[in-house]
Amino acid sequence: MTSKAIFYHAGCSVCIEAEQQFVDALDRNRYSVEVVHFGTQRDRIAEAERLGVKSVPALVIDGNVFHINYGASMADVKG
Amino acid sequence: MTSKAIFYHAGCSVCIEAEQQFVDALDRNRYSVEVVHFGTQRDRIAEAERLGVKSVPALVIDGNVFHINYGASMADVKG
Repeated sequence: MTSKAIFYHAGCSVCIEAEQQFVDALDRNRYSVEVVHFGTQRDRIAEAERLGVKSVPALVIDGNVFHINYGASMADVKG
Repeated sequence: MTSKAIFYHAGCSVCIEAEQQFVDALDRNRYSVEVVHFGTQRDRIAEAERLGVKSVPALVIDGNVFHINYGASMADVKG
């Protein structure tokens, strides 16, 4: 069985770097990884905030939030 | 060939959580992961600072620094 990992981002350069290097490094045999881009999936913003995402990029693994570097706040994301 | 990933931490609770969930999720077939605890490996502090580590926990993959959440600053680490 694989665990669920969700990578939330907003297309910023910090986000893209994290996605390419960091998310790519996850073991796909154990983790199913979903990438959510708030620019095109604005309906996922509320869900991310409920999970505790404060800034992007962020990776949520089994419900635990890991903020990776700092691209933008959720307030910025919501505009 | 595997890439090199180094996880720097200082034993704080934020560090331990990141190590158990985040570092464990890396694909060990592609990444060789070294865990450095500054409490016992103080001689690695200068190396981490040279790489750009500003706070712990931090993961350096192929020379790129990813700060994960925030446990303590390097100033705190150095005491």
